[in-house]
Amino acid sequence: MRIGYYQFAPEFGDVETNLMHIALALENINADLIVLPELATSGYLFISREEVGAVAEPIPGPTTEFLHGLAEKHHCHLVVGLVERADGEFFNSAVLVGPRGLVGVYRKLHLFNEEKYYFQPGNLGCPVFDVAGVKVGLLVCFDHLFPEAARTLALRGAQIVCHPSNLVLPKYGQLTTRVRSIENRVFWILANRCGVEQRGGKKLVYTGCSQIAAPDGTILLRASAREEVLSVVEIDPSQACDKHVTPLNDLFADRRPEAYEL
Amino acid sequence: MRIGYYQFAPEFGDVETNLMHIALALENINADLIVLPELATSGYLFISREEVGAVAEPIPGPTTEFLHGLAEKHHCHLVVGLVERADGEFFNSAVLVGPRGLVGVYRKLHLFNEEKYYFQPGNLGCPVFDVAGVKVGLLVCFDHLFPEAARTLALRGAQIVCHPSNLVLPKYGQLTTRVRSIENRVFWILANRCGVEQRGGKKLVYTGCSQIAAPDGTILLRASAREEVLSVVEIDPSQACDKHVTPLNDLFADRRPEAYEL
Repeated sequence: MRIGYYQFAPEFGDVETNLMHIALALENINADLIVLPELATSGYLFISREEVGAVAEPIPGPTTEFLHGLAEKHHCHLVVGLVERADGEFFNSAVLVGPRGLVGVYRKLHLFNEEKYYFQPGNLGCPVFDVAGVKVGLLVCFDHLFPEAARTLALRGAQIVCHPSNLVLPKYGQLTTRVRSIENRVFWILANRCGVEQRGGKKLVYTGCSQIAAPDGTILLRASAREEVLSVVEIDPSQACDKHVTPLNDLFADRRPEAYEL
Repeated sequence: MRIGYYQFAPEFGDVETNLMHIALALENINADLIVLPELATSGYLFISREEVGAVAEPIPGPTTEFLHGLAEKHHCHLVVGLVERADGEFFNSAVLVGPRGLVGVYRKLHLFNEEKYYFQPGNLGCPVFDVAGVKVGLLVCFDHLFPEAARTLALRGAQIVCHPSNLVLPKYGQLTTRVRSIENRVFWILANRCGVEQRGGKKLVYTGCSQIAAPDGTILLRASAREEVLSVVEIDPSQACDKHVTPLNDLFADRRPEAYEL
C-alpha cells in the first residue's frame, strides 16, 4: 500500500483556488492514500464567525464531490480537512473520500484555542473506516495531545491514523505522534501545513515537518518545515496488526484496564 | 523543591554491596526527592526463580529500613526499585521512603518480556503519595509504554512521576516519558540504569540517558548513556497543577471521555 501526505500552504478563504491547487499537486500521483492538512480548503486563521460561515459547506457537498472526482481519476483515497456546516453549526472536520465517493467524516474532538469561538466540538466519536481492506482512523491536529483518542482508534482496529494538522506549537505534534505510533503499533500520517498566516493582528507560523511513522516509531518520511511537498512511501499495513514489542509482550493484551481510572 | 536521579549499574545479586554503593553516592546530596533505577538493589537479568527468591524481601523489610536511615540522615525522600516478596509471590516493586519511614509501595503493572516468568503483575493499581505536600506517583520501566498508567496518576493529582527503569529498547523510554510529561503536564523523573548484564547466554545493554522533563516537555536534566551520575535540579512542583497549554485549553478539562473506548 502506498501512503503519503501533501504539505502545503492554503490560500486563506479561497476554497476554489485551494481545490485547483490540490488537483494540480495530485496530477501525477501513484498512491493509495494521501492525507492533506487540517482546513486545507480554507486556511485556518479565522477572526470572525462570518468568515467561517463563508467557507463552510455540508458533507457531502461541493468539496467532497470535487474530491470524489480526484479520487476516481487517481484511483486513490484522500483525507482532507475542511469546515463543515451541519445543523446551523460549524465543525472542524476531515473527510475520507475514495473512488466511489465519500467514505466517512470525522469531526475534531479537541478544539485548539480560538477554534472554540467558531466550532462545535466533534460529536461523531472516533470512527474507523475501511480503505481497500485496511482499517483507517482520522484525527485532526490538537487531538494528538490526547492519548485516549489514538488509543480508541487503535483498539477499534485502526492500522493507519490519518492526521490532518495545522500545528503551531514547537514540534509537539511531531514528537507525540511518533509516540502514538509506538504505543499503539500503528502507522501514522501527520499531514501538517506550512507557511504563515497573519490576519487581524494575529499571526501563526505553521511548523510543517509532516511525517509518516511506522508501528515501531521509525520515521519513514519527513518533510522540512517550509517546503510544499507531496511524498509517498510503500508500507505493509498488516504490520500494524501485530502488537508485539517482544515475543512475550503484546501491547494490547498487556493493558491493565482494571488498574486505570480514565 | 530539589529533585534528581541516581543513574548507576548495580552489582547483580549483591544487595548489601548495592546498598553500600547507594549510601556512598548519596553522601553529600542536597535534595528533596531522589529516584533510583528499577531493581536497583539486585540487578535485573535473572535466569531462574531461585535467583529472584534469593534477593526478594518483604516491604517493609531490611532494605526499606536501610533506606529509611538514609532518608532520615539526608532529610529527603527516596524512590528505589527492588524485588518484593509477598504471599509467596514476587513483585517488581518500587518503594517511596522518607525521613519518617516507608511512605508507599508500587508494584509494576506491565511486566516486560521474561519478567513474566518470575514476577506477578502488580495488584496495587496506580497509587499517588504525598511528599511534603507534593503529590507523587510511581511507575516502573515498561509501564511508560501504556499512556493509561501515567494518565491515571495525573488525573489523581500526581505532580511528579518517579520512574525507576532498566530500559533496553533503543530510546523508547526517553521519548515516551517526555511525551507523558507534555500530555499530562507533570514533571517526570526517569531514573534509568546504565551498564551491561550478561548471564546464562543472555545479554542486556541498558540505555542510561536518565532525564527529568518539565510539564511542557522541556528536558531539565539528562545523563549520558554510560555514566554513573547523581543529578539534581530545582523545580516548582506547582507548575504541574496548571494543565493549560493555551489560555483556552486546559488539557484535563478538554478531555472527551464520552468519545473514548478504553
